[in-house]
Amino acid sequence: MDAMMMDYQLTLVHVLERARTIHPNVEVVWRMPDRSLQRYTYGDMHRRSVALAEALQKAGLKEGERVGTLMWNHYAHMEAYFGIPLSGGVLHTLNLRLHPKDLSYIINHAGDRFVIVDDVLLPLWDKVKDLVDVEKVFVVSLTGQPLPGGTTEYEELLSTATGDYAYPDIKENQALGMCYTTGTTGRPKGVVYSHRAMVLHCLGSGLADTLAVSQQDIMVPVVPMFHANAWGIPFTATFFGSKVVHPGPHLDPESLLDLFEKEKVNVTAGVPTIWFGILQAIQKEPDRWNLQPGMRMIVGGAAAPESMIRAFDKHDLRVIHAWGMTETTPLGSVANLKPELLSASEDEQYAYRAKQGVPSPLVDVRAVGDEGEVAWDGESLGELHVRGPWVAGDYFNQPEARGQWTDDGWFRTGDVVAIDEHGYIRIADRTKDLVKSGGEWISSQALENALIGHDAVAEAAVIAVPHPKWQERPLAVVVLAAGSAAESAAGSATESAAGSAALEEELKEMLAEKFASWWVPEAMVFADEIPKTSTGKFQKSKLREQYQDWTWD
Amino acid sequence: MDAMMMDYQLTLVHVLERARTIHPNVEVVWRMPDRSLQRYTYGDMHRRSVALAEALQKAGLKEGERVGTLMWNHYAHMEAYFGIPLSGGVLHTLNLRLHPKDLSYIINHAGDRFVIVDDVLLPLWDKVKDLVDVEKVFVVSLTGQPLPGGTTEYEELLSTATGDYAYPDIKENQALGMCYTTGTTGRPKGVVYSHRAMVLHCLGSGLADTLAVSQQDIMVPVVPMFHANAWGIPFTATFFGSKVVHPGPHLDPESLLDLFEKEKVNVTAGVPTIWFGILQAIQKEPDRWNLQPGMRMIVGGAAAPESMIRAFDKHDLRVIHAWGMTETTPLGSVANLKPELLSASEDEQYAYRAKQGVPSPLVDVRAVGDEGEVAWDGESLGELHVRGPWVAGDYFNQPEARGQWTDDGWFRTGDVVAIDEHGYIRIADRTKDLVKSGGEWISSQALENALIGHDAVAEAAVIAVPHPKWQERPLAVVVLAAGSAAESAAGSATESAAGSAALEEELKEMLAEKFASWWVPEAMVFADEIPKTSTGKFQKSKLREQYQDWTWD
Repeated sequence: MDAMMMDYQLTLVHVLERARTIHPNVEVVWRMPDRSLQRYTYGDMHRRSVALAEALQKAGLKEGERVGTLMWNHYAHMEAYFGIPLSGGVLHTLNLRLHPKDLSYIINHAGDRFVIVDDVLLPLWDKVKDLVDVEKVFVVSLTGQPLPGGTTEYEELLSTATGDYAYPDIKENQALGMCYTTGTTGRPKGVVYSHRAMVLHCLGSGLADTLAVSQQDIMVPVVPMFHANAWGIPFTATFFGSKVVHPGPHLDPESLLDLFEKEKVNVTAGVPTIWFGILQAIQKEPDRWNLQPGMRMIVGGAAAPESMIRAFDKHDLRVIHAWGMTETTPLGSVANLKPELLSASEDEQYAYRAKQGVPSPLVDVRAVGDEGEVAWDGESLGELHVRGPWVAGDYFNQPEARGQWTDDGWFRTGDVVAIDEHGYIRIADRTKDLVKSGGEWISSQALENALIGHDAVAEAAVIAVPHPKWQERPLAVVVLAAGSAAESAAGSATESAAGSAALEEELKEMLAEKFASWWVPEAMVFADEIPKTSTGKFQKSKLREQYQDWTWD
Repeated sequence: MDAMMMDYQLTLVHVLERARTIHPNVEVVWRMPDRSLQRYTYGDMHRRSVALAEALQKAGLKEGERVGTLMWNHYAHMEAYFGIPLSGGVLHTLNLRLHPKDLSYIINHAGDRFVIVDDVLLPLWDKVKDLVDVEKVFVVSLTGQPLPGGTTEYEELLSTATGDYAYPDIKENQALGMCYTTGTTGRPKGVVYSHRAMVLHCLGSGLADTLAVSQQDIMVPVVPMFHANAWGIPFTATFFGSKVVHPGPHLDPESLLDLFEKEKVNVTAGVPTIWFGILQAIQKEPDRWNLQPGMRMIVGGAAAPESMIRAFDKHDLRVIHAWGMTETTPLGSVANLKPELLSASEDEQYAYRAKQGVPSPLVDVRAVGDEGEVAWDGESLGELHVRGPWVAGDYFNQPEARGQWTDDGWFRTGDVVAIDEHGYIRIADRTKDLVKSGGEWISSQALENALIGHDAVAEAAVIAVPHPKWQERPLAVVVLAAGSAAESAAGSATESAAGSAALEEELKEMLAEKFASWWVPEAMVFADEIPKTSTGKFQKSKLREQYQDWTWD
């Protein structure tokens, strides 16, 4: 028997209308390229988003057609997040850190009909435009520079709206947006989000036990709006009436810390690379910034080492470790402390907070090894599979990637994990980043997390390098912390070799205390930096290439 | 274009499986009729709920068939909340405070095939059973008393399960349960909840800005499980892993306060009547109970007067005023303070907290007067209309009640409200409880709230009584507070008239300071009690009957 509740579709119409009616005076703030701060309210954003929706329809956009956005985090991107889906179109965020060839591939694959581009990103667009077939280009004028021919100013587009607009009849399973994953291997793959998935994902992010996003919050998504929907924050903040503060293109630690202080920010979100920089800046000048005590820093996109969580706690800044993927919208799990762990020792608590956390409500997880699902004992490793209403069920026009889903309908994440009896997931590694030494697995990530805990180490990546006897052995690539004794030593040509050798021994001894002896890398390389992907993750494929001819002693 | 997310149905399967995997060791506690406390875990509850689902199928229950529950709040009722819907059946909670004739009407109207009854409620069941056509009666043995012939013990039912059970393929719009509203007029009407509505309602209740139900919470639903799903708490607590403590049949203030203290309860929920009793007990013996500081007390079902909110604050107990109806599952609105009010004066903050609050995410509201939707100015009155995915779209087999919904799909609540510019709803009255004096409306509820603020008043109801000149005039029926001077005076036969008259004058003067003179009742009646409905609300229809022949001086 069917129930008799209202057939109320879960769409962005409700989210934006709620902002208009319940939170019209809450601010949206953004930093311009010239570093000035500008602001308006959700009331303004509502009006302009609706104008954008109407204007796009007037410009000829039809239901389901894609509009690309090549933009930093700011007001116009917020308006695009709502205006494009509420015109019936599909918001396609473009990663401005990609190579023009990859960008053009993605734009062509998605079939973007229009794009909206920041004027400061026109130099990038110039390298892309001849490789793609985009009908109209709208330019957001942030600097006042003259626009190139054949483009339309964004405000001019908005001015075509009459204000007399009725939302189309949007169904919850309709496409709202898409985002391409830029894995380190294979072609980028497009994830197509529904209105339903995004509304549910907002609810998931507002729960007291996950990210607790609230009208009391003032949030900075450092994570770019072209990266997995900025983890949903533009939608979630609008839904719940959190003040949102966008850093624009200024993502250096000092600019961010100035922003946190000035706008009294209490929640922020980004990848670990950002937080390493922030931490160094704070450690260097502990009294310079007056931040909100207990500021929540949501860290995801890559693992946050325990040492980082500890270090921020000393400054009363709370790292909340979370895990997700473009394919999971992205909220997957959050490492809050469960009540049964509140009486655990400090060390134990840190160990749990450094895990990837407990799956969010509405996200099912399992770890699957060679012999099926493994026990939740904190030790047994298996590939993490996930399932839920905001998990992708397919990629856009990519039938060859169907293998990413199991026959019984779960998404294979590619992460190798152990799940413990409390439900915390610990990522041991990406399947492709494990080191297989003499038939046994070594977790490169566990080694990296340990290395990063040493004061002298700023970053560390461990990769598998071919080995004549063991098939593969781990090689550690280490970046020294600025100002560490070892770095000073390395700076002096005559003493550098000795200094590095001494540090290498020290690091190996530290690892030997924590891991089986055969896990400890025989060799370490000290490098100036570790190559990163456009989203700030270690690009291990490049490192492996670089060290493929490594000769073991 | 359709999105490409998983088709993941929102059902209780996820909720119960999450409790099994993520919160298996969290406790469920309940008080037995003999006052002893018993407890088990969500792991146990999962196992037994699944056994119930299997056993019900074995007993012949088919998809969509209704199973009535005539029970207090305890373990077996929790198991019924999950086991019945997860068998594919429909949980039909029966209000044990109804008259046997109403109960039998409801059971027959719903077509309950089976019922589950507490043994302590068999005397009530005996008065119902011959009026209904129920095939099987399962009895929960709480006292060990011998069972009557023709019934099956609940544990015996469970023992027929093998443990080898696969959930049926439940779709999210399938019926999960039903509950009849027992308005003071007309026949009871059945609301049929879907799995989807209930899962969304749980998410709504877990948001940081609504009720923030969390794994960190220890909750007592004083509200009975036969009353609007105990406001969803059995589902929400299970979903999020809150420890839940059920009072069983012991709802007197001392038993509840003992329970709050013993189990370290930090969240509880019930109608104002309960809290008046609790407040009196605490005021009488302020040092007797050691309660959790800041304990959240969710008050709904009727308006909580501002004086009550203030009084509890003095004991560091925080009233959270909420509004909802059986037709809204029931969460409608919650009176948390919005950030823009945190700098308002104390008096202003109390005024907002005494309103019915801001609509929950996913709940749309409007107030409609004779000339259409009224402005959100805090003054203009209109009937409250609501819309959302957990709002009823129809009653069960009651076509004559379709008028409760507007042509454009909103539910008419029957509450007359003003909505202010911050989005707070203030109920002025039920449409049928307004007093129309000389063509102008008087809010009986506003008068009641003011009266209850006087120390000498325990309860007050204001009703419309026919008047030769003004068509209707308000009459106040007042119950004196235990131990008040006025009550002492009333206790002494010779002084009672004088004491009452003096108090009446005092109360009228107090009202005259707050309201237009024509709002102030010309007469007051001092009564021993105010008749209440089975859910503890004032039964004004009965009062109106009682005073229909009132003669104005």
